[in-house]
Amino acid sequence: MGNIELRRHSEVSLARQIYQALRDQMIEGHLKPGEVLLSTREMAKKLAVSRNTAYEAYEMLLAEGYIVSRQGAPTRVAEGLRLEKAVPFQGKIENVSQPTYKYKADFRTGRPDLRRFPRQMWLQLLHKVTEKLPAELWGYTGPEGLPELRQEITAWLYRSRGLTVQPQNIFITSGATQALHLLAKLLSGDSQEIIVEDPCHIGMLRVLQENGFKIWPVPVDKQGIKTVYLEGNRACTVYVTPSHQFPLGGILPADRRAALIRYARKNNIYLIEDDYDSEFRYSGTPVAPLYSMDQQHVIYVGTFSKMLFPALRIGYVILPCQLHTRWCKLRTYADVQNPPFEQAALAEYLRTRKLDRHVYEMRRLYGRRRQVLLQVLEETFGETWHSWGDAAGLHLAVEFPGRHFDQAFSLQCKNHGIRITPVEYHSICKGIHTDKLLFGYGHLEPDEIEKGVRLLQAVL
Amino acid sequence: MGNIELRRHSEVSLARQIYQALRDQMIEGHLKPGEVLLSTREMAKKLAVSRNTAYEAYEMLLAEGYIVSRQGAPTRVAEGLRLEKAVPFQGKIENVSQPTYKYKADFRTGRPDLRRFPRQMWLQLLHKVTEKLPAELWGYTGPEGLPELRQEITAWLYRSRGLTVQPQNIFITSGATQALHLLAKLLSGDSQEIIVEDPCHIGMLRVLQENGFKIWPVPVDKQGIKTVYLEGNRACTVYVTPSHQFPLGGILPADRRAALIRYARKNNIYLIEDDYDSEFRYSGTPVAPLYSMDQQHVIYVGTFSKMLFPALRIGYVILPCQLHTRWCKLRTYADVQNPPFEQAALAEYLRTRKLDRHVYEMRRLYGRRRQVLLQVLEETFGETWHSWGDAAGLHLAVEFPGRHFDQAFSLQCKNHGIRITPVEYHSICKGIHTDKLLFGYGHLEPDEIEKGVRLLQAVL
Repeated sequence: MGNIELRRHSEVSLARQIYQALRDQMIEGHLKPGEVLLSTREMAKKLAVSRNTAYEAYEMLLAEGYIVSRQGAPTRVAEGLRLEKAVPFQGKIENVSQPTYKYKADFRTGRPDLRRFPRQMWLQLLHKVTEKLPAELWGYTGPEGLPELRQEITAWLYRSRGLTVQPQNIFITSGATQALHLLAKLLSGDSQEIIVEDPCHIGMLRVLQENGFKIWPVPVDKQGIKTVYLEGNRACTVYVTPSHQFPLGGILPADRRAALIRYARKNNIYLIEDDYDSEFRYSGTPVAPLYSMDQQHVIYVGTFSKMLFPALRIGYVILPCQLHTRWCKLRTYADVQNPPFEQAALAEYLRTRKLDRHVYEMRRLYGRRRQVLLQVLEETFGETWHSWGDAAGLHLAVEFPGRHFDQAFSLQCKNHGIRITPVEYHSICKGIHTDKLLFGYGHLEPDEIEKGVRLLQAVL
Repeated sequence: MGNIELRRHSEVSLARQIYQALRDQMIEGHLKPGEVLLSTREMAKKLAVSRNTAYEAYEMLLAEGYIVSRQGAPTRVAEGLRLEKAVPFQGKIENVSQPTYKYKADFRTGRPDLRRFPRQMWLQLLHKVTEKLPAELWGYTGPEGLPELRQEITAWLYRSRGLTVQPQNIFITSGATQALHLLAKLLSGDSQEIIVEDPCHIGMLRVLQENGFKIWPVPVDKQGIKTVYLEGNRACTVYVTPSHQFPLGGILPADRRAALIRYARKNNIYLIEDDYDSEFRYSGTPVAPLYSMDQQHVIYVGTFSKMLFPALRIGYVILPCQLHTRWCKLRTYADVQNPPFEQAALAEYLRTRKLDRHVYEMRRLYGRRRQVLLQVLEETFGETWHSWGDAAGLHLAVEFPGRHFDQAFSLQCKNHGIRITPVEYHSICKGIHTDKLLFGYGHLEPDEIEKGVRLLQAVL
């Protein structure tokens, strides 16, 4: 038996240290199969530990089958323990976490202003509501989501959009991403082909691709997906953003909406409608969802990441009855359910109309920021640009005719401390929208917007 | 134009009601393409609403392309809007939610006693910790999990198991289910075959099957998976519960652990080790994970659902470096991340050693309950039964030689208000473990255990 060095002040108990040392010697072959171990009394004496400690170490070795002990016979090393030493990983280790690079100008898309969210109020609400949650809600409560929250989302959709939805058709998810992740599984037919808008949110596209979908891109113009190009594929589902096309910003016109619905009915497939930020519309009330035209063929995906804050991780999906059972299975086998705490708080936030007020205030704030952005762009670039899409959401798509925003441009931006995404980044067929940039402005104060655009001018 | 009935006290604005009514008439063909609409002034007068209200309704129709309006010309209905009325779903609607049936005796497995969890203390901790979270943590914070939590899990694994793990190898998940869901994607090789223990947790089996895995069952005896049957397949991964086999309870002996490691090394595949409840070991300290024998070939899955409470939705996976990048992508495209609030609270709960104390207390409590169960079983069934597995976890596997627990038995139990799971339910190859039942006892008070066993006696 080799030497055993004990660390007397370690957080690991002496018994476990003895166990580990003996175990390693057996695995590495320094203690041979069948070899007799010291008795616990001898071991205790040798290592200057209590007999109990040695006994505990031997018990662990015995329980895990490293040693064999028969009444009256000495304790021996078990057979078949020998293992080569593990070889540490030799390859290149990629650093996964992004460096916390501090940008001077950060035009990222899809970011609400977290500084303006009443965080203290939310935490107090969370505390108040969760104190009352009965103990059984701390267990497993099912894949559908909290009944109160489904009820309150129903009421919210009715008063904000005039939508009539049954609470039992609403299923809570961990954000819109999970909704799409599960829908991709739910709707993957024989063909595994899906129609998406081009350009389309690259993250959502990856979600679909990770689930084995072949992508059938359909081009987008200023109004949204060009439905004349729907035919000619074997798609088993369609993924669209009709209220505010991401990233180009169009509101899909009624005739194209009708064409989408007719297409879905004819082919007996579902349309996935992602309504990611249309609460923030500055020129009027939010657009009516495609879902209101056909509740049997449209699956509506909503999220609270933009209205409240992304870390909430709550979204939802509205499903026709025939998909409920399968959905619940998929959710259960993916991650079981959302935590109930944030759900209960959100239900209360909706019930007391705090959401309505917050959205109202943020809509005014974001609207003003959009105006600032437009004004600064005009002051900076004169008439060499024009914006795309409806006055809505948290970002603006801007075309600079004649420009070509390529990788060299992106690198230059980075060198100047500017984070900005060309539309090309979200394009499937490359080369069409190379003259457009996306300005996320929702999370930026007016002076940050101004400074950012000036910095960009230096690059251009 | 048809009649429009307005609900004056509705939560839906009058403008939206007018919009909806006109839109429906257009879609259903009562208003024909090209037909001229009343002016907003006429419409306001006809419906006895303000001009602004009528104007707002027309703005919505215009924005969404239902009507066309050119300078000087009257407003007309757009082309291509006609849709057949949606046909409501005709099929049978399955009721997804389980009825909240109240069992007289509930021997479900895997349930901690939620009544004994210090919920108020946890909520106060949650509140205290989340108040200090900076605003940026309310946004997106990455798929890895909060650094503090990864750090504290590292410390916890060291002091409770003697495991040395780098925090950057720990990835937070929404429970162990999500860990397995993502691992199934991560590890699915060409063969899509996975070795699992038989019997094996049916829920986890479904997770693997939903991800397209073909199941290669290997039988389990009193000690765990029979590694002599590992060969003869093309499995690209192995899923095991070596610390406390689910459901039969064995501790996998060292020689079989070594055999598993040798097998993984030889075939260059990964072993997934699911350590779901081994903190609760009553006859000694927790068993050392398989992971401690080879950190390159074993992927360790841990969870806090049993130690704390399931609704927490926090588990973790320990991954070798070469899998980090791919894991982060898969997590991002599945549901992005966990909420930071529960993570921060758990980190603090670990840092202040509250977890250690809670586990210590619950281990004593559950240990006593296990003793009660064993005693009641003996009083009730004499010597006609014996238990399987190690004294650990929250459930007991009991063999009743000569008995056959089939569907008729389960139905009878249900009729008597007893919830109990035969091992057969978790068996892949049926007919081998038909004489065994699973008694979940962790969540039951001694009198509940006693009452439950007496009720069961009546059925047997």
